[in-house]
Amino acid sequence: MDFTAYLKERIALVDQALDQYLPAEEKRPQSIHTAMRYSIFAGGKRVRPVLMLAACETVGGKLEAALPAACAMEMIHTYSLIHDDLPAMDDDDFRRGRPTNHKVFGEAIAILAGDGLLTEAFKLLSDPRINGDIPAATRLAVISEIATCAGTFGMVGGQVVDMESEGKPEMDLPTVQYIHTHKTGALIKAAVVAGALLGGADEQGLAAIRRYGEAAGLAFQIADDILDIEGTTEEIGKDAGSDEARGKATYPAVMGLAAAKQEAQAMMDDAFAALVPFGGAADPLRNIARYIVERKN
Amino acid sequence: MDFTAYLKERIALVDQALDQYLPAEEKRPQSIHTAMRYSIFAGGKRVRPVLMLAACETVGGKLEAALPAACAMEMIHTYSLIHDDLPAMDDDDFRRGRPTNHKVFGEAIAILAGDGLLTEAFKLLSDPRINGDIPAATRLAVISEIATCAGTFGMVGGQVVDMESEGKPEMDLPTVQYIHTHKTGALIKAAVVAGALLGGADEQGLAAIRRYGEAAGLAFQIADDILDIEGTTEEIGKDAGSDEARGKATYPAVMGLAAAKQEAQAMMDDAFAALVPFGGAADPLRNIARYIVERKN
Repeated sequence: MDFTAYLKERIALVDQALDQYLPAEEKRPQSIHTAMRYSIFAGGKRVRPVLMLAACETVGGKLEAALPAACAMEMIHTYSLIHDDLPAMDDDDFRRGRPTNHKVFGEAIAILAGDGLLTEAFKLLSDPRINGDIPAATRLAVISEIATCAGTFGMVGGQVVDMESEGKPEMDLPTVQYIHTHKTGALIKAAVVAGALLGGADEQGLAAIRRYGEAAGLAFQIADDILDIEGTTEEIGKDAGSDEARGKATYPAVMGLAAAKQEAQAMMDDAFAALVPFGGAADPLRNIARYIVERKN
Repeated sequence: MDFTAYLKERIALVDQALDQYLPAEEKRPQSIHTAMRYSIFAGGKRVRPVLMLAACETVGGKLEAALPAACAMEMIHTYSLIHDDLPAMDDDDFRRGRPTNHKVFGEAIAILAGDGLLTEAFKLLSDPRINGDIPAATRLAVISEIATCAGTFGMVGGQVVDMESEGKPEMDLPTVQYIHTHKTGALIKAAVVAGALLGGADEQGLAAIRRYGEAAGLAFQIADDILDIEGTTEEIGKDAGSDEARGKATYPAVMGLAAAKQEAQAMMDDAFAALVPFGGAADPLRNIARYIVERKN
Protein backbone atom coordinates (compact mmCIF):
# COMPACT_ATOMS: atom_id res chain seq x y z
CA MET A 1 0.00 0.00 0.00
CA ASP A 2 1.04 3.63 -0.59
CA PHE A 3 1.00 4.60 3.05
CA THR A 4 1.84 8.27 2.51
CA ALA A 5 -1.16 8.71 0.21
CA TYR A 6 -3.35 6.64 2.56
CA LEU A 7 -2.42 8.78 5.55
CA LYS A 8 -2.96 12.02 3.67
CA GLU A 9 -6.39 10.90 2.51
CA ARG A 10 -7.43 9.73 5.97
CA ILE A 11 -6.28 12.95 7.62
CA ALA A 12 -8.27 14.96 5.08
CA LEU A 13 -11.32 12.80 5.77
CA VAL A 14 -11.02 13.33 9.53
CA ASP A 15 -10.42 17.08 9.14
CA GLN A 16 -13.51 17.41 6.99
CA ALA A 17 -15.62 15.49 9.49
CA LEU A 18 -14.26 17.52 12.40
CA ASP A 19 -15.22 20.69 10.57
CA GLN A 20 -18.71 19.29 10.09
CA TYR A 21 -19.22 18.08 13.66
CA LEU A 22 -17.71 21.01 15.58
CA PRO A 23 -20.00 23.98 16.31
CA ALA A 24 -19.53 26.69 13.67
CA GLU A 25 -17.47 29.71 14.71
CA GLU A 26 -20.33 32.11 14.12
CA LYS A 27 -22.55 30.29 16.61
CA ARG A 28 -22.90 31.96 20.01
CA PRO A 29 -20.70 32.17 22.05
CA GLN A 30 -18.29 32.78 19.17
CA SER A 31 -15.19 33.13 21.34
CA ILE A 32 -15.36 29.59 22.67
CA HIS A 33 -16.07 28.02 19.29
CA THR A 34 -13.21 29.97 17.75
CA ALA A 35 -10.89 28.78 20.53
CA MET A 36 -12.00 25.14 20.17
CA ARG A 37 -11.46 25.21 16.43
CA TYR A 38 -8.10 26.95 16.79
CA SER A 39 -6.62 24.02 18.68
CA ILE A 40 -8.43 21.30 16.72
CA PHE A 41 -7.09 22.69 13.45
CA ALA A 42 -3.56 23.39 14.72
CA GLY A 43 -1.88 20.77 12.58
CA GLY A 44 -2.45 17.62 14.61
CA LYS A 45 -1.31 14.31 13.12
CA ARG A 46 -4.75 12.72 13.78
CA VAL A 47 -3.03 9.56 15.05
CA ARG A 48 -5.99 8.48 17.19
CA PRO A 49 -8.74 8.99 14.59
CA VAL A 50 -6.65 7.33 11.86
CA LEU A 51 -6.02 4.39 14.19
CA MET A 52 -9.72 4.10 14.98
CA LEU A 53 -10.76 4.04 11.34
CA ALA A 54 -8.08 1.47 10.54
CA ALA A 55 -9.12 -0.77 13.46
CA CYS A 56 -12.73 -0.59 12.32
CA GLU A 57 -11.78 -1.70 8.80
CA THR A 58 -9.34 -4.35 10.01
CA VAL A 59 -12.17 -6.25 11.72
CA GLY A 60 -14.35 -5.91 8.62
CA GLY A 61 -16.32 -2.73 9.34
CA LYS A 62 -16.93 0.30 7.14
CA LEU A 63 -14.96 3.39 8.11
CA GLU A 64 -18.10 5.58 8.08
CA ALA A 65 -19.26 3.68 11.16
CA ALA A 66 -16.25 4.96 13.12
CA LEU A 67 -15.84 8.47 11.69
CA PRO A 68 -17.93 10.38 14.29
CA ALA A 69 -16.27 8.51 17.18
CA ALA A 70 -12.87 9.15 15.58
CA CYS A 71 -13.65 12.88 15.68
CA ALA A 72 -14.81 12.62 19.29
CA MET A 73 -11.49 11.00 20.14
CA GLU A 74 -9.57 13.87 18.55
CA MET A 75 -11.67 16.35 20.54
CA ILE A 76 -10.72 14.56 23.77
CA HIS A 77 -7.06 14.46 22.77
CA THR A 78 -7.13 18.17 21.94
CA TYR A 79 -8.87 19.14 25.19
CA SER A 80 -6.10 17.31 27.07
CA LEU A 81 -3.42 19.26 25.20
CA ILE A 82 -5.11 22.62 25.88
CA HIS A 83 -5.34 21.89 29.61
CA ASP A 84 -1.83 20.39 29.80
CA ASP A 85 -0.37 23.55 28.26
CA LEU A 86 -1.97 25.87 30.88
CA PRO A 87 0.33 27.93 33.13
CA ALA A 88 -0.78 25.91 36.17
CA MET A 89 0.21 22.68 34.38
CA ASP A 90 3.12 22.44 31.88
CA ASP A 91 3.05 26.19 31.14
CA ASP A 92 3.83 25.82 27.43
CA ASP A 93 3.74 28.80 25.09
CA PHE A 94 4.01 26.81 21.88
CA ARG A 95 2.48 23.60 20.57
CA ARG A 96 3.23 22.28 17.08
CA GLY A 97 5.03 25.56 16.42
CA ARG A 98 1.98 27.71 17.11
CA PRO A 99 1.07 29.72 20.24
CA THR A 100 -0.91 27.60 22.68
CA ASN A 101 -4.62 28.17 23.23
CA HIS A 102 -4.26 30.21 26.42
CA LYS A 103 -1.59 32.42 24.83
CA VAL A 104 -4.10 33.40 22.13
CA PHE A 105 -7.44 33.38 23.96
CA GLY A 106 -6.47 33.77 27.62
CA GLU A 107 -6.56 31.23 30.40
CA ALA A 108 -10.28 31.36 31.15
CA ILE A 109 -11.34 30.66 27.58
CA ALA A 110 -8.65 27.97 27.26
CA ILE A 111 -10.02 26.14 30.31
CA LEU A 112 -13.55 26.42 28.93
CA ALA A 113 -12.48 25.41 25.41
CA GLY A 114 -11.04 22.22 26.90
CA ASP A 115 -14.22 21.63 28.89
CA GLY A 116 -16.26 22.34 25.78
CA LEU A 117 -14.31 19.88 23.61
CA LEU A 118 -14.55 17.11 26.20
CA THR A 119 -18.29 17.62 26.51
CA GLU A 120 -18.74 17.94 22.75
CA ALA A 121 -17.04 14.55 22.32
CA PHE A 122 -19.69 12.81 24.41
CA LYS A 123 -22.43 14.80 22.71
CA LEU A 124 -21.19 13.55 19.35
CA LEU A 125 -20.84 9.96 20.59
CA SER A 126 -24.47 9.97 21.77
CA ASP A 127 -26.06 12.17 19.10
CA PRO A 128 -29.23 10.42 17.86
CA ARG A 129 -28.94 12.11 14.44
CA ILE A 130 -25.46 10.70 13.84
CA ASN A 131 -24.69 7.02 13.36
CA GLY A 132 -28.28 6.14 14.13
CA ASP A 133 -27.98 2.72 12.46
CA ILE A 134 -25.33 1.46 14.88
CA PRO A 135 -26.90 -0.55 17.72
CA ALA A 136 -27.41 1.59 20.84
CA ALA A 137 -25.67 -1.07 22.96
CA THR A 138 -22.54 -0.81 20.77
CA ARG A 139 -22.53 2.97 21.00
CA LEU A 140 -22.90 2.74 24.77
CA ALA A 141 -19.95 0.32 24.94
CA VAL A 142 -17.86 2.77 22.90
CA ILE A 143 -18.73 5.64 25.25
CA SER A 144 -17.86 3.49 28.26
CA GLU A 145 -14.49 2.46 26.80
CA ILE A 146 -13.57 6.03 25.87
CA ALA A 147 -14.72 7.58 29.17
CA THR A 148 -12.85 4.94 31.15
CA CYS A 149 -9.62 5.48 29.22
CA ALA A 150 -9.91 9.29 29.38
CA GLY A 151 -10.62 9.49 33.13
CA THR A 152 -8.65 9.18 36.34
CA PHE A 153 -7.86 5.52 35.71
CA GLY A 154 -6.58 6.51 32.27
CA MET A 155 -5.38 9.76 30.71
CA VAL A 156 -6.21 12.15 33.56
CA GLY A 157 -4.56 9.79 36.05
CA GLY A 158 -1.43 9.64 33.87
CA GLN A 159 -1.23 13.43 33.75
CA VAL A 160 -1.56 13.64 37.54
CA VAL A 161 1.29 11.19 38.17
CA ASP A 162 3.39 12.83 35.43
CA MET A 163 3.04 16.21 37.10
CA GLU A 164 3.65 14.87 40.57
CA SER A 165 6.83 13.04 39.59
CA GLU A 166 8.32 15.98 37.66
CA GLY A 167 11.69 16.98 39.07
CA LYS A 168 11.77 14.17 41.63
CA PRO A 169 15.36 13.02 42.20
CA GLU A 170 14.82 9.29 41.70
CA MET A 171 12.61 8.08 38.89
CA ASP A 172 11.73 4.43 38.62
CA LEU A 173 10.58 2.34 35.69
CA PRO A 174 7.18 1.36 37.18
CA THR A 175 6.27 5.03 37.57
CA VAL A 176 7.33 5.86 34.02
CA GLN A 177 5.39 2.85 32.78
CA TYR A 178 2.32 3.99 34.70
CA ILE A 179 2.56 7.50 33.25
CA HIS A 180 3.04 6.33 29.67
CA THR A 181 0.40 3.60 29.64
CA HIS A 182 -2.10 6.03 31.20
CA LYS A 183 -1.31 9.48 29.86
CA THR A 184 -0.93 8.53 26.20
CA GLY A 185 -1.45 4.78 26.00
CA ALA A 186 -4.98 4.67 27.37
CA LEU A 187 -6.46 6.92 24.69
CA ILE A 188 -4.65 5.10 21.88
CA LYS A 189 -5.96 1.80 23.19
CA ALA A 190 -9.46 3.30 23.46
CA ALA A 191 -9.22 4.51 19.86
CA VAL A 192 -8.55 1.06 18.40
CA VAL A 193 -10.94 -0.75 20.76
CA ALA A 194 -13.73 1.68 19.89
CA GLY A 195 -12.94 1.22 16.20
CA ALA A 196 -13.12 -2.56 16.57
CA LEU A 197 -16.41 -2.32 18.48
CA LEU A 198 -17.92 -0.08 15.80
CA GLY A 199 -16.60 -2.42 13.11
CA GLY A 200 -18.46 -5.33 14.71
CA ALA A 201 -15.45 -7.31 15.98
CA ASP A 202 -16.04 -10.61 17.76
CA GLU A 203 -14.47 -11.23 21.17
CA GLN A 204 -11.25 -12.69 19.79
CA GLY A 205 -10.81 -9.85 17.33
CA LEU A 206 -11.46 -7.31 20.06
CA ALA A 207 -8.83 -8.90 22.31
CA ALA A 208 -6.26 -8.87 19.51
CA ILE A 209 -6.96 -5.22 18.72
CA ARG A 210 -6.75 -4.35 22.41
CA ARG A 211 -3.31 -5.99 22.66
CA TYR A 212 -2.18 -4.13 19.53
CA GLY A 213 -3.42 -0.85 21.04
CA GLU A 214 -1.62 -1.36 24.34
CA ALA A 215 1.68 -2.19 22.66
CA ALA A 216 1.44 0.53 19.99
CA GLY A 217 0.39 3.10 22.59
CA LEU A 218 3.47 2.44 24.70
CA ALA A 219 5.73 2.38 21.62
CA PHE A 220 4.27 5.76 20.62
CA GLN A 221 5.14 7.35 23.94
CA ILE A 222 8.64 5.88 24.13
CA ALA A 223 9.21 7.19 20.59
CA ASP A 224 8.06 10.59 21.84
CA ASP A 225 10.61 10.47 24.68
CA ILE A 226 13.37 9.57 22.21
CA LEU A 227 12.28 12.29 19.80
CA ASP A 228 12.55 14.87 22.56
CA ILE A 229 16.26 13.98 22.81
CA GLU A 230 17.14 13.33 19.18
CA GLY A 231 14.81 15.67 17.31
CA THR A 232 15.55 19.30 16.57
CA THR A 233 13.35 22.07 17.96
CA GLU A 234 12.25 22.84 14.43
CA GLU A 235 11.22 19.25 13.73
CA ILE A 236 9.18 18.69 16.86
CA GLY A 237 7.65 22.18 17.11
CA LYS A 238 8.63 22.63 20.77
CA ASP A 239 11.91 23.00 22.62
CA ALA A 240 14.09 19.91 22.09
CA GLY A 241 15.48 18.46 25.30
CA SER A 242 12.65 20.03 27.32
CA ASP A 243 11.81 16.74 29.07
CA GLU A 244 15.31 16.46 30.53
CA ALA A 245 15.41 20.14 31.47
CA ARG A 246 12.22 19.65 33.48
CA GLY A 247 13.25 16.38 35.04
CA LYS A 248 10.34 14.61 33.30
CA ALA A 249 9.85 10.90 33.83
CA THR A 250 10.85 9.29 30.51
CA TYR A 251 12.10 5.91 29.31
CA PRO A 252 15.55 7.21 28.27
CA ALA A 253 15.88 8.87 31.68
CA VAL A 254 15.33 5.65 33.62
CA MET A 255 16.96 3.09 31.29
CA GLY A 256 19.18 5.02 28.91
CA LEU A 257 18.63 5.85 25.25
CA ALA A 258 19.76 2.53 23.77
CA ALA A 259 17.56 0.42 26.06
CA ALA A 260 14.61 2.75 25.42
CA LYS A 261 15.01 2.17 21.69
CA GLN A 262 15.07 -1.58 22.28
CA GLU A 263 11.94 -1.32 24.38
CA ALA A 264 10.13 0.62 21.65
CA GLN A 265 11.11 -2.11 19.20
CA ALA A 266 9.90 -4.84 21.56
CA MET A 267 6.54 -3.09 21.84
CA MET A 268 6.38 -2.84 18.04
CA ASP A 269 7.05 -6.57 17.77
CA ASP A 270 4.24 -7.27 20.20
CA ALA A 271 1.88 -5.00 18.30
CA PHE A 272 2.72 -6.85 15.08
CA ALA A 273 2.25 -10.24 16.74
CA ALA A 274 -1.25 -9.25 17.83
CA LEU A 275 -2.17 -8.49 14.21
CA VAL A 276 -1.19 -11.89 12.76
CA PRO A 277 -4.75 -13.31 12.78
CA PHE A 278 -5.99 -10.47 10.56
CA GLY A 279 -3.50 -11.13 7.74
CA GLY A 280 -3.26 -8.43 5.08
CA ALA A 281 -6.38 -6.64 6.37
CA ALA A 282 -4.21 -5.26 9.17
CA ASP A 283 -1.61 -3.67 6.88
CA PRO A 284 -2.83 -0.14 7.65
CA LEU A 285 -2.47 -0.79 11.41
CA ARG A 286 1.05 -2.17 10.78
CA ASN A 287 2.00 0.90 8.78
CA ILE A 288 0.57 3.28 11.34
CA ALA A 289 2.56 1.59 14.11
CA ARG A 290 5.75 1.87 12.04
CA TYR A 291 4.97 5.52 11.27
CA ILE A 292 4.35 6.26 14.94
CA VAL A 293 7.73 4.94 16.01
CA GLU A 294 9.81 6.22 13.10
CA ARG A 295 8.28 9.71 12.81
CA LYS A 296 10.45 12.79 13.15
CA ASN A 297 7.82 15.02 14.73
CA MET B 1 -45.93 15.50 52.46
CA ASP B 2 -43.23 16.25 55.03
CA PHE B 3 -40.89 17.97 52.60
CA THR B 4 -38.08 18.57 55.09
CA ALA B 5 -37.89 14.87 55.89
CA TYR B 6 -38.25 13.96 52.20
CA LEU B 7 -35.39 16.25 51.22
CA LYS B 8 -33.14 14.98 53.99
CA GLU B 9 -33.77 11.38 53.00
CA ARG B 10 -33.14 12.06 49.31
CA ILE B 11 -29.93 13.95 49.98
CA ALA B 12 -28.69 11.06 52.12
CA LEU B 13 -29.56 8.62 49.35
CA VAL B 14 -27.67 10.68 46.76
CA ASP B 15 -24.67 11.14 49.06
CA GLN B 16 -24.49 7.40 49.67
CA ALA B 17 -24.68 6.65 45.94
CA LEU B 18 -22.04 9.28 45.15
CA ASP B 19 -19.74 7.66 47.69
CA GLN B 20 -20.31 4.32 46.00
CA TYR B 21 -19.82 5.53 42.43
CA LEU B 22 -16.84 7.84 42.90
CA PRO B 23 -13.37 6.25 42.80
CA ALA B 24 -12.16 5.51 46.33
CA GLU B 25 -9.59 7.90 47.77
CA GLU B 26 -7.00 5.18 48.20
CA LYS B 27 -7.06 4.32 44.49
CA ARG B 28 -4.14 5.66 42.46
CA PRO B 29 -3.67 8.56 41.85
CA GLN B 30 -4.88 9.36 45.35
CA SER B 31 -4.44 13.13 45.06
CA ILE B 32 -7.00 13.49 42.29
CA HIS B 33 -9.57 11.23 43.92
CA THR B 34 -9.16 13.10 47.20
CA ALA B 35 -9.67 16.42 45.40
CA MET B 36 -12.73 15.16 43.51
CA ARG B 37 -14.32 13.87 46.72
CA TYR B 38 -13.46 17.07 48.61
CA SER B 39 -15.64 19.17 46.32
CA ILE B 40 -18.38 16.57 45.87
CA PHE B 41 -18.80 16.27 49.64
CA ALA B 42 -18.53 20.00 50.38
CA GLY B 43 -22.12 20.40 51.52
CA GLY B 44 -23.94 20.76 48.22
CA LYS B 45 -27.73 20.97 48.30
CA ARG B 46 -28.03 18.18 45.65
CA VAL B 47 -30.73 20.20 43.87
CA ARG B 48 -30.10 18.58 40.47
CA PRO B 49 -30.03 14.94 41.66
CA VAL B 50 -33.09 15.44 43.85
CA LEU B 51 -34.91 17.01 40.91
CA MET B 52 -33.95 14.10 38.65
CA LEU B 53 -35.21 11.47 41.09
CA ALA B 54 -38.45 13.38 41.58
CA ALA B 55 -39.01 13.78 37.83
CA CYS B 56 -38.43 10.06 37.35
CA GLU B 57 -41.05 9.21 39.97
CA THR B 58 -43.50 11.85 38.77
CA VAL B 59 -43.80 10.10 35.40
CA GLY B 60 -44.23 6.73 37.11
CA GLY B 61 -40.64 5.43 37.24
CA LYS B 62 -38.70 3.95 40.14
CA LEU B 63 -36.06 6.22 41.63
CA GLU B 64 -33.39 3.50 41.41
CA ALA B 65 -33.52 3.88 37.63
CA ALA B 66 -32.35 7.49 37.90
CA LEU B 67 -29.93 7.29 40.83
CA PRO B 68 -26.69 6.72 38.84
CA ALA B 69 -27.58 9.48 36.35
CA ALA B 70 -28.48 11.74 39.28
CA CYS B 71 -24.96 11.22 40.64
CA ALA B 72 -23.46 11.89 37.21
CA MET B 73 -25.37 15.16 37.13
CA GLU B 74 -23.93 16.20 40.50
CA MET B 75 -20.43 15.35 39.24
CA ILE B 76 -20.95 17.66 36.24
CA HIS B 77 -22.34 20.42 38.46
CA THR B 78 -19.37 20.07 40.83
CA TYR B 79 -16.80 20.09 38.01
CA SER B 80 -18.31 23.36 36.79
CA LEU B 81 -18.01 24.91 40.26
CA ILE B 82 -14.35 23.84 40.61
CA HIS B 83 -13.44 25.36 37.23
CA ASP B 84 -15.55 28.50 37.80
CA ASP B 85 -13.72 29.16 41.08
CA LEU B 86 -10.24 29.04 39.48
CA PRO B 87 -8.07 32.19 39.59
CA ALA B 88 -8.38 32.60 35.81
CA MET B 89 -12.17 32.52 36.09
CA ASP B 90 -14.10 33.91 39.11
CA ASP B 91 -11.09 33.61 41.45
CA ASP B 92 -13.09 32.55 44.50
CA ASP B 93 -11.37 31.47 47.70
CA PHE B 94 -14.49 30.14 49.40
CA ARG B 95 -17.47 28.08 48.31
CA ARG B 96 -20.22 27.07 50.72
CA GLY B 97 -18.03 28.44 53.52
CA ARG B 98 -15.10 26.13 52.75
CA PRO B 99 -11.86 26.87 50.87
CA THR B 100 -12.28 26.20 47.15
CA ASN B 101 -10.64 23.19 45.50
CA HIS B 102 -7.64 25.07 44.09
CA LYS B 103 -6.97 26.73 47.45
CA VAL B 104 -6.60 23.30 49.02
CA PHE B 105 -5.06 21.21 46.22
CA GLY B 106 -3.48 23.78 43.93
CA GLU B 107 -4.58 24.93 40.51
CA ALA B 108 -3.27 22.00 38.49
CA ILE B 109 -5.06 19.37 40.55
CA ALA B 110 -8.21 21.51 40.61
CA ILE B 111 -8.27 21.69 36.81
CA LEU B 112 -7.72 17.93 36.61
CA ALA B 113 -10.28 17.20 39.34
CA GLY B 114 -12.84 19.07 37.25
CA ASP B 115 -11.80 17.18 34.12
CA GLY B 116 -11.93 13.93 36.09
CA LEU B 117 -15.43 14.57 37.42
CA LEU B 118 -16.80 15.49 33.99
CA THR B 119 -15.30 12.34 32.47
CA GLU B 120 -16.42 10.19 35.40
CA ALA B 121 -19.99 11.38 34.84
CA PHE B 122 -20.05 9.98 31.31
CA LYS B 123 -18.32 6.81 32.48
CA LEU B 124 -21.07 6.30 35.04
CA LEU B 125 -23.82 7.08 32.52
CA SER B 126 -22.47 4.45 30.14
CA ASP B 127 -21.18 1.84 32.64
CA PRO B 128 -22.48 -1.58 31.51
CA ARG B 129 -22.42 -2.87 35.10
CA ILE B 130 -24.76 -0.14 36.32
CA ASN B 131 -28.41 0.21 35.29
CA GLY B 132 -27.99 -2.63 32.81
CA ASP B 133 -31.74 -3.23 32.67
CA ILE B 134 -32.53 0.19 31.22
CA PRO B 135 -32.77 0.07 27.41
CA ALA B 136 -29.52 1.15 25.76
CA ALA B 137 -31.43 3.61 23.55
CA THR B 138 -32.85 5.35 26.64
CA ARG B 139 -29.41 5.58 28.24
CA LEU B 140 -28.02 7.02 25.02
CA ALA B 141 -30.81 9.63 24.93
CA VAL B 142 -29.97 10.59 28.53
CA ILE B 143 -26.28 11.01 27.67
CA SER B 144 -27.18 13.12 24.65
CA GLU B 145 -29.49 15.38 26.67
CA ILE B 146 -26.94 15.86 29.45
CA ALA B 147 -23.97 16.44 27.12
CA THR B 148 -25.96 18.95 25.07
CA CYS B 149 -27.05 20.92 28.14
CA ALA B 150 -23.55 20.84 29.69
CA GLY B 151 -21.70 21.99 26.55
CA THR B 152 -21.15 25.22 24.67
CA PHE B 153 -24.84 25.51 23.76
CA GLY B 154 -25.65 25.04 27.45
CA MET B 155 -23.71 25.48 30.68
CA VAL B 156 -20.24 26.15 29.22
CA GLY B 157 -21.74 28.71 26.83
CA GLY B 158 -23.50 30.44 29.73
CA GLN B 159 -20.25 30.67 31.68
CA VAL B 160 -18.46 32.17 28.66
CA VAL B 161 -21.06 34.92 28.17
CA ASP B 162 -21.23 35.52 31.94
CA MET B 163 -17.47 36.08 32.06
CA GLU B 164 -17.43 38.22 28.96
CA SER B 165 -20.20 40.53 30.16
CA GLU B 166 -18.76 41.03 33.65
CA GLY B 167 -18.13 44.68 34.40
CA LYS B 168 -19.60 45.87 31.09
CA PRO B 169 -21.26 49.27 31.56
CA GLU B 170 -24.60 48.46 29.96
CA MET B 171 -26.28 45.14 30.71
CA ASP B 172 -29.40 44.15 28.84
CA LEU B 173 -32.14 41.70 29.71
CA PRO B 174 -31.58 39.36 26.71
CA THR B 175 -27.95 38.85 27.77
CA VAL B 176 -28.90 38.16 31.38
CA GLN B 177 -31.59 35.76 30.16
CA TYR B 178 -29.07 33.98 27.94
CA ILE B 179 -26.61 33.62 30.82
CA HIS B 180 -29.20 32.34 33.29
CA THR B 181 -30.96 29.90 30.98
CA HIS B 182 -27.59 28.50 29.87
CA LYS B 183 -25.28 28.65 32.85
CA THR B 184 -27.69 27.26 35.45
CA GLY B 185 -30.94 26.59 33.64
CA ALA B 186 -29.64 24.12 31.09
CA LEU B 187 -28.36 21.62 33.65
CA ILE B 188 -31.53 21.85 35.74
CA LYS B 189 -33.60 21.20 32.64
CA ALA B 190 -31.33 18.29 31.73
CA ALA B 191 -31.77 16.84 35.22
CA VAL B 192 -35.54 16.64 35.02
CA VAL B 193 -35.63 15.60 31.36
CA ALA B 194 -33.15 12.79 32.05
CA GLY B 195 -35.22 11.75 35.06
CA ALA B 196 -38.36 11.64 32.93
CA LEU B 197 -36.59 9.63 30.20
CA LEU B 198 -35.33 7.11 32.76
CA GLY B 199 -38.79 6.95 34.31
CA GLY B 200 -40.27 5.98 30.95
CA ALA B 201 -42.23 9.17 30.22
CA ASP B 202 -44.30 9.40 27.04
CA GLU B 203 -43.87 12.37 24.71
CA GLN B 204 -46.49 14.51 26.42
CA GLY B 205 -45.06 13.82 29.85
CA LEU B 206 -41.57 14.60 28.61
CA ALA B 207 -42.71 17.94 27.16
CA ALA B 208 -44.44 18.90 30.43
CA ILE B 209 -41.35 18.01 32.47
CA ARG B 210 -39.16 19.97 30.07
CA ARG B 211 -41.35 23.05 30.49
CA TYR B 212 -41.23 22.64 34.26
CA GLY B 213 -37.41 22.35 34.10
CA GLU B 214 -36.99 25.48 32.01
CA ALA B 215 -39.21 27.58 34.27
CA ALA B 216 -37.82 26.20 37.54
CA GLY B 217 -34.26 26.57 36.28
CA LEU B 218 -34.74 30.25 35.55
CA ALA B 219 -36.57 30.81 38.85
CA PHE B 220 -33.64 29.14 40.63
CA GLN B 221 -31.11 31.52 39.13
CA ILE B 222 -33.18 34.67 39.70
CA ALA B 223 -33.59 33.54 43.32
CA ASP B 224 -29.80 33.20 43.47
CA ASP B 225 -29.38 36.78 42.22
CA ILE B 226 -31.84 38.03 44.84
CA LEU B 227 -30.15 36.01 47.58
CA ASP B 228 -26.82 37.63 46.72
CA ILE B 229 -28.40 40.99 47.60
CA GLU B 230 -30.67 40.06 50.51
CA GLY B 231 -28.78 37.18 52.14
CA THR B 232 -26.05 37.59 54.73
CA THR B 233 -22.51 36.36 54.06
CA GLU B 234 -22.99 33.75 56.76
CA GLU B 235 -26.20 32.41 55.20
CA ILE B 236 -24.94 32.07 51.65
CA GLY B 237 -21.39 30.93 52.46
CA LYS B 238 -19.76 33.52 50.20
CA ASP B 239 -19.49 37.31 50.26
CA ALA B 240 -22.94 38.91 50.10
CA GLY B 241 -23.27 41.59 47.44
CA SER B 242 -20.39 40.09 45.44
CA ASP B 243 -22.40 40.09 42.19
CA GLU B 244 -22.90 43.86 42.34
CA ALA B 245 -19.29 44.48 43.35
CA ARG B 246 -18.16 42.60 40.26
CA GLY B 247 -20.65 44.14 37.91
CA LYS B 248 -22.22 40.73 37.27
CA ALA B 249 -25.15 40.43 34.93
CA THR B 250 -28.14 39.71 37.18
CA TYR B 251 -31.91 40.14 37.04
CA PRO B 252 -32.01 42.72 39.85
CA ALA B 253 -29.26 44.69 38.07
CA VAL B 254 -31.20 45.00 34.81
CA MET B 255 -34.78 45.27 36.11
CA GLY B 256 -34.57 46.17 39.78
CA LEU B 257 -35.19 43.99 42.82
CA ALA B 258 -38.99 44.19 42.90
CA ALA B 259 -39.39 43.27 39.23
CA ALA B 260 -36.88 40.44 39.63
CA LYS B 261 -38.97 39.01 42.46
CA GLN B 262 -42.07 39.24 40.27
CA GLU B 263 -40.23 37.47 37.46
CA ALA B 264 -39.17 34.65 39.79
CA GLN B 265 -42.81 34.28 40.83
CA ALA B 266 -43.98 34.25 37.20
CA MET B 267 -41.51 31.45 36.45
CA MET B 268 -42.77 29.54 39.49
CA ASP B 269 -46.34 29.91 38.23
CA ASP B 270 -45.29 28.54 34.85
CA ALA B 271 -43.47 25.62 36.47
CA PHE B 272 -46.61 24.80 38.47
CA ALA B 273 -48.83 25.07 35.39
CA ALA B 274 -46.66 22.52 33.58
CA LEU B 275 -47.22 20.03 36.41
CA VAL B 276 -51.04 20.11 36.37
CA PRO B 277 -51.42 16.93 34.25
CA PHE B 278 -49.50 14.88 36.83
CA GLY B 279 -51.83 15.72 39.74
CA GLY B 280 -50.58 14.76 43.19
CA ALA B 281 -47.72 12.69 41.76
CA ALA B 282 -45.90 15.97 41.07
CA ASP B 283 -46.05 17.22 44.66
CA PRO B 284 -42.32 16.60 45.21
CA LEU B 285 -41.48 18.68 42.10
CA ARG B 286 -43.79 21.44 43.37
CA ASN B 287 -42.14 21.42 46.77
CA ILE B 288 -38.64 21.45 45.29
CA ALA B 289 -39.52 24.46 43.12
CA ARG B 290 -40.87 26.30 46.15
CA TYR B 291 -37.78 25.36 48.16
CA ILE B 292 -35.49 26.57 45.36
CA VAL B 293 -37.06 30.02 45.27
CA GLU B 294 -37.63 30.52 49.00
CA ARG B 295 -34.29 29.15 50.25
CA LYS B 296 -31.99 31.32 52.33
CA ASN B 297 -28.71 29.77 51.08
